[in-house]
Amino acid sequence: MDDFIFRNPTKIVFGKGTEKFTGREAANFGKRVLLHYGGGSIKKSGLYDTVVTSLLDAGINITELGGVKPNPRLSLVREGIRICREDKIDLILAVGGGSVIDSAKAISIGVYYDGDVWDFYTGKADAKKALPIGTVLTIPAAGSESSDGSVITNEDGDYKRPYGSSLIYPVFSILNPELAFTLPDFQVACGIADMTAHLLERYFTNSSPVGLTDRLLEGTMKNIIDYAGKVRENRQDYDAWAEIMWSGTIAHNNMLNTGRVGDWASHEIEHELSGIYDIAHGAGLAVVFPAWMKYTYKHDIKRFVQWAVRVWNVEQDFRSDEETVLAGIARFEVFLKSLGLAVRLDGVGIDDTRLEEMADKCSAGDTITKGSFVKLGKADILNILRLAL
Amino acid sequence: MDDFIFRNPTKIVFGKGTEKFTGREAANFGKRVLLHYGGGSIKKSGLYDTVVTSLLDAGINITELGGVKPNPRLSLVREGIRICREDKIDLILAVGGGSVIDSAKAISIGVYYDGDVWDFYTGKADAKKALPIGTVLTIPAAGSESSDGSVITNEDGDYKRPYGSSLIYPVFSILNPELAFTLPDFQVACGIADMTAHLLERYFTNSSPVGLTDRLLEGTMKNIIDYAGKVRENRQDYDAWAEIMWSGTIAHNNMLNTGRVGDWASHEIEHELSGIYDIAHGAGLAVVFPAWMKYTYKHDIKRFVQWAVRVWNVEQDFRSDEETVLAGIARFEVFLKSLGLAVRLDGVGIDDTRLEEMADKCSAGDTITKGSFVKLGKADILNILRLAL
Repeated sequence: MDDFIFRNPTKIVFGKGTEKFTGREAANFGKRVLLHYGGGSIKKSGLYDTVVTSLLDAGINITELGGVKPNPRLSLVREGIRICREDKIDLILAVGGGSVIDSAKAISIGVYYDGDVWDFYTGKADAKKALPIGTVLTIPAAGSESSDGSVITNEDGDYKRPYGSSLIYPVFSILNPELAFTLPDFQVACGIADMTAHLLERYFTNSSPVGLTDRLLEGTMKNIIDYAGKVRENRQDYDAWAEIMWSGTIAHNNMLNTGRVGDWASHEIEHELSGIYDIAHGAGLAVVFPAWMKYTYKHDIKRFVQWAVRVWNVEQDFRSDEETVLAGIARFEVFLKSLGLAVRLDGVGIDDTRLEEMADKCSAGDTITKGSFVKLGKADILNILRLAL
Repeated sequence: MDDFIFRNPTKIVFGKGTEKFTGREAANFGKRVLLHYGGGSIKKSGLYDTVVTSLLDAGINITELGGVKPNPRLSLVREGIRICREDKIDLILAVGGGSVIDSAKAISIGVYYDGDVWDFYTGKADAKKALPIGTVLTIPAAGSESSDGSVITNEDGDYKRPYGSSLIYPVFSILNPELAFTLPDFQVACGIADMTAHLLERYFTNSSPVGLTDRLLEGTMKNIIDYAGKVRENRQDYDAWAEIMWSGTIAHNNMLNTGRVGDWASHEIEHELSGIYDIAHGAGLAVVFPAWMKYTYKHDIKRFVQWAVRVWNVEQDFRSDEETVLAGIARFEVFLKSLGLAVRLDGVGIDDTRLEEMADKCSAGDTITKGSFVKLGKADILNILRLAL
């Protein structure tokens, strides 16, 4: 087990109708709140009204900034920073999914930084201070509601880049599984793929032994497999949604990351797909991850055997580790397809014309490697993208 | 899944030699530290010197209070409260196992309370404010290093009682598995029984469904089973100790308790054993828990079947849930015995002369029930104690 420091300060308020407590939680951090959200869905569902009423009842002044898009844009982040400074905002309240929360996180660190906020995402600067962020989660997927990460897209060049800092753990997150009842099929599927990918990125590690976190990661994956079909069958199944929503948070709150170093190459490769083609992150991961596995499993075949046997209940072929692993990857693909997701590039509308460009951007012109379990250069990334064709 | 609020703020600093960082962590909370510890073991091992040097290097003034005994005593807690007030202590640093940490927690809430600190443990008062507590853990067992609980023994009447409050989560805990290398066999065994019991108390619940936390609890139990033998075989096995130590923390940090209500009757019954006979808590749990299981399994036999199959790899007898469950309980007893622990009362030096008295105290003269999975009155508690004979 690797040495580690772990502290996740996010207060989780979980259960039916918990969005009514937004004002009470927000009031602990001041009187001036930036209400940050996406399109019209929270207005249509009535969530917007409930949250605004709760904030006003708690004596809070609201400034609004809607319009966050999936793959949240740098331009809106810059606008948010300007507003927070002008209005002396005390807390940013993100009401939405991972994109809204990630946008709020970027704003929160930009407010106290004299340079351009994009500097954090290009590795040129590290955040020293941040505004507190609260969230009301509407999409179980990204885990951003209790994570230290944020991913932003710079429209100028189609770059999508991550940044992490312990300063951007939300101070509170309100999780009501009922809010997921009205999500479209495709968003449900992408969310489940995304949380599964967060577990897989942590699972494939060179740290050893990592007995406890292996067990916790496997258990969370099995639970997602147990309940994914149930929420797709009955979108009003509160109990199944509660399992999926809490699994998505646990998958990414870094407890399951303790004592080990994750891989994250698949996420970085996917960022090039959604950076250029603006596809949903979960949809991209469903394509990239199986290909990544086929390219890397020989690096530590025993770890892949353990995954296939423990998570996918593959009956171990004791004479062939490879057969065992390939059976596990096949079951993973069947699972993704059962959600309605494509597992090849053509299924997300990507052909082979820009694979080289994506491999080049991901490796910064073949000057850096991606991944930790297996370090990948430009040629490797290109090979993985070709395996996904 | 039940509604819940979860926030565990403890910062974990985990790894080799991390006790050297004690001063750095403590200095975040002020300049005046009460150094709280037990007997001479931390002086013999050199840990005391390392911690004191680290504190002094960080410019911290140290007040000392040693002498904490297993089943920590109320009298010493009262002395600690007096010292903290007189010396205007900023942080209580507990260097030791669960007893030292629990004693520190009692002091931390007593300092700001005008009445008698025992009021918290008898339900007469609830803490409103507490001094921050830091810990350097020497015994993987109680999980108090990242929990909101504390158990204190009142020598006046041999009462051992628990108290819980979010105010007493430690602000930081330093976990170095190397510090466990020199523990005596018996303490190792008791610690493993204690952390296993924390998982079992949470596992047996009437909340449903609790898919994710079931999986996490099962995975943590399996990991303890995997590594318990390894640390007993080779007391210098850092990696195995790291797995056991981190499992002990995860078992009791309340993450695995989210959305469910645990039972805790076995803990309460055990408190009567160690309150009167002053036996080690883990040793008492190894006796009480199997008896509690035999008395209660019919309440939800499917939950016990799941436990036997998933945790103990019992091959399910599809024609007899009962046979499956009893096989699981038998394997649990074999496991406890493999640690060198007794699973019957005579093995911990307790005969049948005071069973009635213990049942009476535990049920406050048959006026209250204990447990949540199954509610137990005085007669039930007596039956369980007789099953343990």
